[in-house]
Amino acid sequence: MSASKEENTQVLFVKRPADRLDVAETFAIARQPMPTPADGQLLLRIIYLSIDPGTRSWMEDRRSYVSPLVLNEMMRGSGVAEVIESRCADYSVGDIVIASTGWQEYAAVDATLVSRLSVPEGIALPVAFAGLHIAGLTAYFGMLDIGQIKAGQTVVVSGAAGATGSIAVQIAKLHGCRVIGIAGGPDKCRHLTEVLGVDVALDYRATTFEEDLATATPAFVDVFYDNVGGDVLDAVLLRLAKCSRIVLCGGISQYDRAEARGPKNYLEIIKQSASMVGFVLYDYKSRYPEAAAALAQWIAEGKIKVCVDVQEGGVSKAPDALARLFSGKNIGKQLVRVGAEPGNQ
Amino acid sequence: MSASKEENTQVLFVKRPADRLDVAETFAIARQPMPTPADGQLLLRIIYLSIDPGTRSWMEDRRSYVSPLVLNEMMRGSGVAEVIESRCADYSVGDIVIASTGWQEYAAVDATLVSRLSVPEGIALPVAFAGLHIAGLTAYFGMLDIGQIKAGQTVVVSGAAGATGSIAVQIAKLHGCRVIGIAGGPDKCRHLTEVLGVDVALDYRATTFEEDLATATPAFVDVFYDNVGGDVLDAVLLRLAKCSRIVLCGGISQYDRAEARGPKNYLEIIKQSASMVGFVLYDYKSRYPEAAAALAQWIAEGKIKVCVDVQEGGVSKAPDALARLFSGKNIGKQLVRVGAEPGNQ
Repeated sequence: MSASKEENTQVLFVKRPADRLDVAETFAIARQPMPTPADGQLLLRIIYLSIDPGTRSWMEDRRSYVSPLVLNEMMRGSGVAEVIESRCADYSVGDIVIASTGWQEYAAVDATLVSRLSVPEGIALPVAFAGLHIAGLTAYFGMLDIGQIKAGQTVVVSGAAGATGSIAVQIAKLHGCRVIGIAGGPDKCRHLTEVLGVDVALDYRATTFEEDLATATPAFVDVFYDNVGGDVLDAVLLRLAKCSRIVLCGGISQYDRAEARGPKNYLEIIKQSASMVGFVLYDYKSRYPEAAAALAQWIAEGKIKVCVDVQEGGVSKAPDALARLFSGKNIGKQLVRVGAEPGNQ
Repeated sequence: MSASKEENTQVLFVKRPADRLDVAETFAIARQPMPTPADGQLLLRIIYLSIDPGTRSWMEDRRSYVSPLVLNEMMRGSGVAEVIESRCADYSVGDIVIASTGWQEYAAVDATLVSRLSVPEGIALPVAFAGLHIAGLTAYFGMLDIGQIKAGQTVVVSGAAGATGSIAVQIAKLHGCRVIGIAGGPDKCRHLTEVLGVDVALDYRATTFEEDLATATPAFVDVFYDNVGGDVLDAVLLRLAKCSRIVLCGGISQYDRAEARGPKNYLEIIKQSASMVGFVLYDYKSRYPEAAAALAQWIAEGKIKVCVDVQEGGVSKAPDALARLFSGKNIGKQLVRVGAEPGNQ
């Protein structure tokens, strides 16, 4: 068992990026002794780390939905892990849990701060982690509670090949909507139509993107689920239907720069009596079980396909995986494999 | 009676502004014969024209909540008028009505398209027109229906000395909110505190504006009623409370330019689970009587003061009055006097 290993590799956050993320400057690798769990804690061996675009905003030293990252401390992030030592009666060695583990190999975490990941029969661990945790839950509440989608509506999703977007488009299809997915490049667009089943896939890098969007939305857009911002948001703002809703889930085009550029067409929100609604997943904490149960069923029934993009090579590759998100290379949920899956060690 | 006058002066819209409004280029004066009302129509003598910032957006040749202005046709706008000839049994000579009269002295209008303005005892005609028509109704629905203000909340209003803003701040005060009004320059700020009764007046032109706003909002901002956009919107976005609402009523800082600049801090809407909601007054058409009745009562009781800024000199001064709005010179509702009030002719 890895518990015998004496070192714990961590990734530290050592410099706030002034503009575009330079992972070599932003992060440093440290080797610490194995943590020792106190009473009420669990010692976790991390299997996969979740790499999330929102992470980038924590690097700024300003007010947000979580406190800013502290320089020279371990990078924050959530992971799926195996309990390898338990000092809490509710958990046993071998349990699979999700926790804010940080970017490291082993974590000693209060048992009150972890949640069990039940991996349904026949579903791979990374699929369960991506589909039933941050990405799946975000798509669920964003599309259903914030977007309030109804059958027959035209729903547009940007970042549609990404972790949250790829689940969001499928939830909208399941609810009888006409779904237009926006992604970058022909490979992702093919993935959208062939794997995820969107009605129309649009490549925002195409020179004809704005016309393509207009052609694809003859009755305008009822719900826009935006993960991207920038020019994509501006283009969709010009296609809003009366009383339409913009689900503001993210703005990946704007995170990795010194200052975001606002949507210049935002006054269309007035003209169409539309609304733009933001949310963070934590708002829905009390309803995670409801959402995870629905997602697990859809995944088990094959109604939702969860794609994962696993960066191999251990925790020290987590910075590269984060950079990969901003380069738009990932299809589906970006994970980093930190340790072997149970039974494969 | 003026009905004997044989000419009707009109203002035509003759050139779409490419950027900043140049009234000498945009408009032209035309002299037409007096219109003749058909069956079912009224001949109106216009007394005051309403000058509204939203007008500027009709000048662009693109999709909006109303069709774009047509070149070389009369400029669109609403006015309060006296019926001087009636070919509809529901109206009599001498009735005071509101209609989309256009920028002219006389209009022949279908009786189905006008509404009666009942001027409460002791209230001046321009006050009734400003308070019970576009500005008052917009403030009413924007603050109560879109803003959903509650007693004890911190409410910020930009363009607070303007037509809609000045009524919006008073509606918020009436409902027990702590109200911060934003306007340009010390005269307007004095007006906000001394006449309109806001708790704090902030001058957005002050170099310390952002700090002043932070100091004035220790518990952040629950509702922001925005008439302005630009830097003011960006500053308030940084002060949003969790689950706050932005009532997107207008963006006067952005209308009079070739391309609007979006709010660069819009991603704060995600971080604070906030919403930005647009509306146009026409959405609430069926509820105008309810709102007008409430406003009339508040005005009669002295709870809402309506300030009007009347440009004298006749309909040909309407272009100057519009330019005045964008220069930020008006305090309260900008009107143009086209003809004498009944009894003063």
